[in-house]
Amino acid sequence: MKVKDITSRDIWQAKKRIAPYVTRTPLVHSHALSEMTGANVYLKLENLQAIGAFKVRGAANKIISLPEEKKKNGVSTFSTGNHGMAVAYMASKLGIKAMVCMSRNVPEVKVKNIARWGAEIKREWDSQDQAGVYCYQVEQETGMTVIPPFDDKEIICGQATIALEMIEDYPEIDTVLVPLSGGGLISGVTLGMKMTVPDVRIVGISQQRAAVMIESLKAGHPVEMPEEPTLADSLLGGIGLDNRYTFDITREYVDEVAQVTEEEISRGLAYLMKNHKVIAEGASCVGIAYALRKGCIRPGSNAAIIVTGCGIPMGQVRAVINAHF
Amino acid sequence: MKVKDITSRDIWQAKKRIAPYVTRTPLVHSHALSEMTGANVYLKLENLQAIGAFKVRGAANKIISLPEEKKKNGVSTFSTGNHGMAVAYMASKLGIKAMVCMSRNVPEVKVKNIARWGAEIKREWDSQDQAGVYCYQVEQETGMTVIPPFDDKEIICGQATIALEMIEDYPEIDTVLVPLSGGGLISGVTLGMKMTVPDVRIVGISQQRAAVMIESLKAGHPVEMPEEPTLADSLLGGIGLDNRYTFDITREYVDEVAQVTEEEISRGLAYLMKNHKVIAEGASCVGIAYALRKGCIRPGSNAAIIVTGCGIPMGQVRAVINAHF
Repeated sequence: MKVKDITSRDIWQAKKRIAPYVTRTPLVHSHALSEMTGANVYLKLENLQAIGAFKVRGAANKIISLPEEKKKNGVSTFSTGNHGMAVAYMASKLGIKAMVCMSRNVPEVKVKNIARWGAEIKREWDSQDQAGVYCYQVEQETGMTVIPPFDDKEIICGQATIALEMIEDYPEIDTVLVPLSGGGLISGVTLGMKMTVPDVRIVGISQQRAAVMIESLKAGHPVEMPEEPTLADSLLGGIGLDNRYTFDITREYVDEVAQVTEEEISRGLAYLMKNHKVIAEGASCVGIAYALRKGCIRPGSNAAIIVTGCGIPMGQVRAVINAHF
Repeated sequence: MKVKDITSRDIWQAKKRIAPYVTRTPLVHSHALSEMTGANVYLKLENLQAIGAFKVRGAANKIISLPEEKKKNGVSTFSTGNHGMAVAYMASKLGIKAMVCMSRNVPEVKVKNIARWGAEIKREWDSQDQAGVYCYQVEQETGMTVIPPFDDKEIICGQATIALEMIEDYPEIDTVLVPLSGGGLISGVTLGMKMTVPDVRIVGISQQRAAVMIESLKAGHPVEMPEEPTLADSLLGGIGLDNRYTFDITREYVDEVAQVTEEEISRGLAYLMKNHKVIAEGASCVGIAYALRKGCIRPGSNAAIIVTGCGIPMGQVRAVINAHF
């Protein structure tokens, strides 16, 4: 099985390559969800990565794979979220120069989170798009490589290593619930799973608001949409009108997609806190939100839900706790 | 090195024996604590065990080690906390009959937590001591083995497997902060560490209130004390006036002990939630509370803090969050 230029060998190589830099996260049994659904339900806790999110896998695989001369010129990105953290973190681990460009509107706490890994921060634009244009300009001029957030072979293969770990820990796995945004995670997990244990059902889950990949699937081609505020803010963002990998892979290999409401995401967060004592960000809880809908996880199945990250401010945590307990 | 009748071989055997039943918990880097202390600080997240606490290790090692004819007669205990959960859980996994005896005063939520693993529950006494007397009576009459919570060779060797995993993940480790109660955990971790990498500093940490082991160390022999309410409720309980293992091991091999206040425990809980998005019980956070005191973790050291469990009601979580954020 070869999908575009990605083979299973690429994914196994990624696993070996990134091992020194990523946490081998546990796949923990959810007694509560298993009891409720009549299935065996596990949670893959990617929130336990050093940066608090799975994104370190793709960034590690991409940056380590760069030719030595490119590494010397450094790397850049314009994500201010988990991907930006992942790039800054990996660059610091590898002793590579990193630059993260962002809009003036980015809140101080996010700037601080990225700055802690020693990246150079530029914050002189009015939008993330403008910051991105600058990164690509610098790449042209100085050879500082832009590390894309999702639509890239090495990024996808890095995220795919989650699938290999889940199969190692739980070879019976037959259902995986994956948060769906730009499609880097779901493309990787889907290829990693289906190239190894083909008879597996992959469900991609997005928030209700501004779910660009799902709208693109409906349209039959990548579309653009304005962002809307959501608890699952890490799932916001476009998929790129010139999408090369993730749109086709999602369309062809993901079995189902679904959307969950803000109220369901909030309940998912509360459920995870109560039953597993784990605080995750809204985007992380779309899988749990979906699993809490009656019948969405088939009785008797062997399911895993990927909990992707924990970049949530304590004010939001407090609001969820006070609303639910 | 042989301590009482415990050798390193016993600990390695325990590791192999319990592997199918315990989660290989991650040792995660704490960037925040490392930055603050100038050390490399890691957290061993035992709260991720299926029952939400490390106690499953000792219970698994003890129950699996029973001769087959004893297994047929079942096991019992009178702990209503994490050890009771661990015994009920392991018995259900191994298809062994289990009985948990408790006082009528035990709150419904704790009864439910234990009942979910299918143990027979008896709740017809006025105190835990009376329930314990009944368990030993039944053992005499029917051969149903009482599984002791801490002062037992197999229990200690089970908890010691935490040390082996930490050394595998972080061979540079030179300091370990361990919650201290009856001493089963600290005896195991201390022997596991010192039999493998002898030049390691072990610090045992208790709450300020009714810290029986620490008072016993001061007295030079096991003492009894009345319990007092504390956020670290899992650390309450005596060490037994006829203590066989844990008092001597703690006295001889633990390098330091310390006590933390209720306010420090609460701050430790809040710190863990904010920086690692992990909710743990008060007893779990005494190590973090201690680490937050200036100078307690030596700059340049390679330290691990054991986060032991997450049996905390959401009402208490809400109180901590509203107090600190």
